[in-house]
Amino acid sequence: MDKRRMEVIIDGKVYTLAGEESEEYMQRVASYVNGKIQEMKKEPSYKKLNRDLQGILLALNISDDLYKTKEILKLAQEEYDKKDKTIYDMTQQLSNEKLQAETAKRLAEEYRHKINELQKRIIELETGAE
Amino acid sequence: MDKRRMEVIIDGKVYTLAGEESEEYMQRVASYVNGKIQEMKKEPSYKKLNRDLQGILLALNISDDLYKTKEILKLAQEEYDKKDKTIYDMTQQLSNEKLQAETAKRLAEEYRHKINELQKRIIELETGAE
Repeated sequence: MDKRRMEVIIDGKVYTLAGEESEEYMQRVASYVNGKIQEMKKEPSYKKLNRDLQGILLALNISDDLYKTKEILKLAQEEYDKKDKTIYDMTQQLSNEKLQAETAKRLAEEYRHKINELQKRIIELETGAE
Repeated sequence: MDKRRMEVIIDGKVYTLAGEESEEYMQRVASYVNGKIQEMKKEPSYKKLNRDLQGILLALNISDDLYKTKEILKLAQEEYDKKDKTIYDMTQQLSNEKLQAETAKRLAEEYRHKINELQKRIIELETGAE
């Protein structure tokens, strides 16, 4: 894929980036970085730090968001596995209930035939047609 | 919660951080940031950039990982919702099959009683016990 060149504004400065992502995606990511910088600038202690430490704190702060998201993803995948297990169990139950319903229907059908036969026999006996 | 003070090493320098997270968690996050820096340093063009731009690129790079993880999480949540829908549908099906099985069993039971009655009647007729 060709690399696109695009401009993003971070902390008031224009940067030209080259990447394979869509411009829309990169602007979304840049906007998130800007938000993080603004958030950190609200801390009076942050401004007193040198640029290096500011950069490291920014990287750690964003990585913290990443790791929190990874934890949520991990929990979501655990829930996902539980749901798969539930679906598996329900498939077994469903197949068992279907079998029970079929067996009972077949039995009812056999009994119905038997009743017909017995009723015929009774008519024969009652009318002396034997 | 009390803020803990802990030392992390990023790009060969020791930084003292204060935060509410566990030391183990912060070391994991710091180690990830280190990995990102090492990865970026492999690009010859990166070293030529000034520190400001290096910091911005690092922040964008980590944010890219974050947004990719968020996308995976979004897909996982969509799958999760689909599974919930499947479980809901299967619950309905299961209740329907249970009802069918119960109805068929009740019918079979009624027929069985009827057969008993008819068989008694036949014995009465055959033995002339009427």
